Amino acid sequence: MTAAVLSTGTELTRGELVNTNATWLADALTGLGFDVVALDTVGDEEARLTAAFRRLGAEHDVFVCTGGLGPTTDDLTSATVAKLLGVPLERDPASLEAIRARLARFGRSLSETNSKQADFPRGATILPNPWGTAPGFAVKLERALACFLPGVPSEMQAMFSAHVAPLLEPLPRARRYQVRMRTFGMAESDLNDRLAGVEAAHGVVIGYRASQAEIEVKVLAEGSSAADAEARARAAASEVRTRLGSVVYGEGTTSLAAVVLQTLRERGLTLALAESCTGGLAAELLTNVPGASQVFFGGAVVYSNEVKTALLGVEPALIAAHGAVSAEVARAMAEGARARTGASMALSFTGIAGPDGGTPTKPVGLVHTAVSHADGTRTLERVFPGTREQVRRRAVNAGFSLLRRVILGDAT
Amino acid sequence: MTAAVLSTGTELTRGELVNTNATWLADALTGLGFDVVALDTVGDEEARLTAAFRRLGAEHDVFVCTGGLGPTTDDLTSATVAKLLGVPLERDPASLEAIRARLARFGRSLSETNSKQADFPRGATILPNPWGTAPGFAVKLERALACFLPGVPSEMQAMFSAHVAPLLEPLPRARRYQVRMRTFGMAESDLNDRLAGVEAAHGVVIGYRASQAEIEVKVLAEGSSAADAEARARAAASEVRTRLGSVVYGEGTTSLAAVVLQTLRERGLTLALAESCTGGLAAELLTNVPGASQVFFGGAVVYSNEVKTALLGVEPALIAAHGAVSAEVARAMAEGARARTGASMALSFTGIAGPDGGTPTKPVGLVHTAVSHADGTRTLERVFPGTREQVRRRAVNAGFSLLRRVILGDAT
Repeated sequence: MTAAVLSTGTELTRGELVNTNATWLADALTGLGFDVVALDTVGDEEARLTAAFRRLGAEHDVFVCTGGLGPTTDDLTSATVAKLLGVPLERDPASLEAIRARLARFGRSLSETNSKQADFPRGATILPNPWGTAPGFAVKLERALACFLPGVPSEMQAMFSAHVAPLLEPLPRARRYQVRMRTFGMAESDLNDRLAGVEAAHGVVIGYRASQAEIEVKVLAEGSSAADAEARARAAASEVRTRLGSVVYGEGTTSLAAVVLQTLRERGLTLALAESCTGGLAAELLTNVPGASQVFFGGAVVYSNEVKTALLGVEPALIAAHGAVSAEVARAMAEGARARTGASMALSFTGIAGPDGGTPTKPVGLVHTAVSHADGTRTLERVFPGTREQVRRRAVNAGFSLLRRVILGDAT
Repeated sequence: MTAAVLSTGTELTRGELVNTNATWLADALTGLGFDVVALDTVGDEEARLTAAFRRLGAEHDVFVCTGGLGPTTDDLTSATVAKLLGVPLERDPASLEAIRARLARFGRSLSETNSKQADFPRGATILPNPWGTAPGFAVKLERALACFLPGVPSEMQAMFSAHVAPLLEPLPRARRYQVRMRTFGMAESDLNDRLAGVEAAHGVVIGYRASQAEIEVKVLAEGSSAADAEARARAAASEVRTRLGSVVYGEGTTSLAAVVLQTLRERGLTLALAESCTGGLAAELLTNVPGASQVFFGGAVVYSNEVKTALLGVEPALIAAHGAVSAEVARAMAEGARARTGASMALSFTGIAGPDGGTPTKPVGLVHTAVSHADGTRTLERVFPGTREQVRRRAVNAGFSLLRRVILGDAT
């Protein structure tokens, strides 16, 4: 059983957009036990779409296609599939009503352009989309079960989980199980050395994926049954956790922000932030987690020195003596945020994210972080590599990790 | 003249790694005037590599392949191409010496495993790699000039610029020009309706790309010469601008945040933020633009009611009377942020990002925004669709758009 992913859109073939949909789908299909052997991309042209649909339908058992289901003239997927199958497009009343109702909720009326999104090849299985206006559909295309989803990542992901995964359930495939563990604070080569021998001892494959200063450790097992594969993967994952200790901060698709919030919640703690160089990124990552408001009180983004004083009470004399990027100012920011908001803990960042503003003694990438709590304040100085965005992201992750270690008592 | 990109590697087909190489190459080839119509990915299996090389060689004039040139057993590219061409692999003495010298610089000696990287199909044009150990090569594969590069992004990019671009120089290509316009505040279907007839009148192709509540409108023209193509695209883009008015906020790769900062800078204005439901996202987007500190003073992320009072001076009685999610509180937040930071303008957000917390009168997605400036305060109430992340992103973009319109005098 082989599977393929087809991404459509001239914005992809012209190199205007990195294709994260194909990677997400390949990971999801692999996780379901399919052998994904091709990820193809074609632009919005009928002849090329037709050729790709025909080829992937003949060569694979499953293919998932994204894009081309929107309302505009360059959205050709449904019409092209219908033509290839030799069936007419038919308007689906239920989909039309769902689109009409969705538009009405936002005060808009249904136009003929929007109505086109309710047209599907006759006989297709329609995949409803309560997350947007473009429903998807599935058809048998030669050998393959072919599923068509919109290209908007959040809608595509929700629809894959809700509709495509159940459609694929009856298909035979390898019995595989993968455990994904999230780590922070250890380099890939050190993780690799620390885990030497685990693959052979448990008959699993260990993979690593580094992104944004975090490294994901993936343990993949195959077995005689789904339960056997899961048992092998879990046994190996348990040994990985033992060997890596608190470097593993979570499992699956969690984030350091979510784990920090959970840790605060479990201990009845609350948090405030004081951000200079990270410019709101730490707050944004925390508040993107639903329910953050239970433990996160708020914070200040203090770019100018005057605002550091006005919102957090940082003494101008302290800034004059040590500079805004200093351990002393990081400490004063965290203590000011804690005092002014009444939160039980506060985390601060001050640094030079670049690309300009570095000096020989304070280079681009230098970030001072502080965690203030009832028993005192702990500071951390680091120089992070990378672009402005990478420096900010790495600084925030290092700050969250410091906060977690302070709470867990590892680092105080 | 069509071009294709082939990426090889099981880490790609399994969804472990986002394929940025294909996007980079597609952008580079498009920039050179080639019509890139396919970006394909296959795993490291000889039969699949052979099928892909044969197909892309038959269908395109140019294809660029990355990956599979390393020293390990799953690096199959050179041997597979040689077999397909019916020629032997030959070891290249100059490449072998370059690999030996490079390894020696890092204190390592040349093994047979490394030596394999100096083997190329007989007759291939060798593309030296002073940036790593894997040289590339180019061959004629049926119709196509096929170029093979290593998968390490920095090496691949350097080798494309140094070796592949000059090889492609003599090939004839289309004369094309594309103008990309960024819009905010109009739905895709409405843009499409508003631009009806522009394609036919100017002989151009108009494409749309929606992301994060913004929609990019792309106008692509072909012409008898580069100048002719540009003139056609510019004429059509000018009509698009006329039809869409201030909905078009910029051109190329700019962002609403960058345009807002630029507009503030041009008028000598400064900005503060007061964020509740957006949780720091507005600050994060502004401060991700280098140089933001010249006009952005800072702001407060005020999740709890107490912190709204402590950091921004919002009266508890006002919150009690109208609720934290209200036009009155949005107004008080913006006015408080402006007063406390000394910025000439302030932008605030308070709303319900979801997934929980909605009520019949204040549903999930409801966001109140306010812009405070020297002449007064303007508020906006909107209900945004989507996930928590989408509501936040859309609210921030709507706030930036309101701020821009207030500055430009469109909406006061």
